[in-house]
Amino acid sequence: MSHNAEIIAVGSEMLTSQRLDTNSLYIADQLNGLGVEVCRKLVIGDDCALVAEAVQDAMRHADIVILSGGLGPTEDDLTREAVARALGRPLQMRHDLVEAIEERFRRRQRKMAENNKRQAYVIEGGEVLPNPNGTAVGQWIEENGHVVILLPGPPGELKPMFTRECMPRLAQRLPAQVIRTRLYRVTGMTESDLDHLIAPVYSKFTNPATTILASPFDIHVHLRARCSTEQEAERLLAEVGDPVVELLGDRIFSRNGDSLEAVTGAELRKAGATVAVAESCTGGMLAERITAVPASSDYFVGGFLVYNNSMKESLLGIDHALIERHTAVSPEAAQAMAEQARARAGATYGVSTTGEAGPESSTGVPVGIVYIGFAGPGGSEVRKLNLPGDRTRIRMFATQAALDLLRRNIGK
Amino acid sequence: MSHNAEIIAVGSEMLTSQRLDTNSLYIADQLNGLGVEVCRKLVIGDDCALVAEAVQDAMRHADIVILSGGLGPTEDDLTREAVARALGRPLQMRHDLVEAIEERFRRRQRKMAENNKRQAYVIEGGEVLPNPNGTAVGQWIEENGHVVILLPGPPGELKPMFTRECMPRLAQRLPAQVIRTRLYRVTGMTESDLDHLIAPVYSKFTNPATTILASPFDIHVHLRARCSTEQEAERLLAEVGDPVVELLGDRIFSRNGDSLEAVTGAELRKAGATVAVAESCTGGMLAERITAVPASSDYFVGGFLVYNNSMKESLLGIDHALIERHTAVSPEAAQAMAEQARARAGATYGVSTTGEAGPESSTGVPVGIVYIGFAGPGGSEVRKLNLPGDRTRIRMFATQAALDLLRRNIGK
Repeated sequence: MSHNAEIIAVGSEMLTSQRLDTNSLYIADQLNGLGVEVCRKLVIGDDCALVAEAVQDAMRHADIVILSGGLGPTEDDLTREAVARALGRPLQMRHDLVEAIEERFRRRQRKMAENNKRQAYVIEGGEVLPNPNGTAVGQWIEENGHVVILLPGPPGELKPMFTRECMPRLAQRLPAQVIRTRLYRVTGMTESDLDHLIAPVYSKFTNPATTILASPFDIHVHLRARCSTEQEAERLLAEVGDPVVELLGDRIFSRNGDSLEAVTGAELRKAGATVAVAESCTGGMLAERITAVPASSDYFVGGFLVYNNSMKESLLGIDHALIERHTAVSPEAAQAMAEQARARAGATYGVSTTGEAGPESSTGVPVGIVYIGFAGPGGSEVRKLNLPGDRTRIRMFATQAALDLLRRNIGK
Repeated sequence: MSHNAEIIAVGSEMLTSQRLDTNSLYIADQLNGLGVEVCRKLVIGDDCALVAEAVQDAMRHADIVILSGGLGPTEDDLTREAVARALGRPLQMRHDLVEAIEERFRRRQRKMAENNKRQAYVIEGGEVLPNPNGTAVGQWIEENGHVVILLPGPPGELKPMFTRECMPRLAQRLPAQVIRTRLYRVTGMTESDLDHLIAPVYSKFTNPATTILASPFDIHVHLRARCSTEQEAERLLAEVGDPVVELLGDRIFSRNGDSLEAVTGAELRKAGATVAVAESCTGGMLAERITAVPASSDYFVGGFLVYNNSMKESLLGIDHALIERHTAVSPEAAQAMAEQARARAGATYGVSTTGEAGPESSTGVPVGIVYIGFAGPGGSEVRKLNLPGDRTRIRMFATQAALDLLRRNIGK
């Protein structure tokens, strides 16, 4: 029996010109890892009859049917009703779920609107998939060798539920097949330069399959080998992976999926070091990324958001004459900012950003020019970046380069 | 007759974790302008039988069926064959198209591979839609009051073909219809509370259609009216929209789609006021959001990232005794942080965050407890938040509440 999945995203908003279903990308990636192919993806509005019909259709094409969305508390959340109708099974009010939802509201000292009880209905015979990140639980229903899975729409709820609850259950149902993967996260080069560099290695192989994917901040190189034994899979991965690692060197910052901020934070903790930031054009994004990592208070001291020149002088004590002479978007300013952040916060390292993020230049410097500074016990370093893209991308790339500059200097 | 469309994107690559069908956003936008709703969107692999079946299904749901992709010269381009099969009509080789393709290759001084002739087959009775941007022509086929449209997949070919060839043909078939919309962005309440409040108003109407959608930071309430005249559409929108506005009051922060940070920034600029921040648990995210808005340097002065207590004391001059007595996660600390940020940066307003974002409590305060502070010429204000979700969501909600507290106090 071949294992195929159909993904049905429920929600009228995804039929407009403004919204796409992106959950299916994540689900497809996870399923592919189990050797399951997605054969169809459907987006459908909040219409009970249409959704019910789609579920029946899907069960003719696929043995795994995954629905996302329409599990919330409002009138137009009707995925539960539609699947119940498609399967010809009743919905049952689960009192334990009502209590859990009530408790959730009580803990937050808020009154529960009555419509939240809609979320306590489970399709007869269905298994509840807990949702630690929201009130809408998921459901897992088996029928004639098919599995029908109901997931909440918000990605922050869907993804952990799918990974924690559905993947182990699916893996159990599928034939033994070994899939081994390697992931390299790379920063400091463009996607096309990276591909140009490593294509001569990976393009000779179809197993492992190699995927290069640009994420917002960095590039993911993903190898996936499918074999009957683990040893064989690891041998194939090494055949492609080892030369790729050789070629990319320390531009690979993570082999376990960790973000650059997590890797850099772990290095800081290991070194018993601390960091402070001074941000101008990135306006807090650098610190936001550093502090997005749990327990970052172990190594992040704080920082200085010096968005205008007088703040650079008053808050950081940057010499007025330096800014007069070199302007605030200059290597000299970036260096002084990093050094002063380090000194004033009493941190091991200081990191700074100053530049022109656009959309129009307010400084006379071309949009996309950013200086990043680093200061440590061994001295200072400044880099000039010339970044493409819009304001958001320029700020994102600048924080990425600043984090990478810090990473490369820890312990030096 | 109601006019509905189904969009079918053909191509196995769009079933992987790396590619989405984005043509449908453009097509939906164009169709909506004609008063046509998209009722379903399907993505399907390069499989003739599945595509043929999908076309037959689609014709039961929609009177306009639009296929994109699968019109190229290769073996797996089989949309023509699949639609011919679905309609039970033969494919006919069009010699004028063969010549046109040959001519195209001649002009580029390239030899035409034989498989390009596949692109010269037209479904019997079908009308050819010229493609000035590629070799694959489109097709327009009518059957029993339905229209089936075949478009090439590349957006640079599909979009001009749809606009130039399909839109005028569709407009001719459709009754004159007008679509008018209203959008309210709301903050400061949950989706279910909002729905509970306004459902009694909107649920009595199907026109305008009302959609409530939670976005990462706030909630969008979207009304869409379809009528024969603009006046009638506006009258219907007012009938639902005006009481909704009445009920939601100043929890509506935007009626044109602008984000909370953009709206707040515009208010600050209008008032000639400036703002500084002092962030603890949000670690830069509040400032990052404020400075994501172009020209935010007009009103954003800078800020203090005081991630640990000694930074709160040294950088902001918060009294050591205050933190000793009340801890750093307290209303007193939030107020002092806002006041000191304002004073030290010389800004009109100061905004602060301090709390426990988790995943584990490092402060003894339960995860999710956040205090936000505001300070202005008229005095100070502190709010206590009890936020659900993980670290990211807690930080996001905290910045949202802080921005909203600022917005509500501008000019006071």
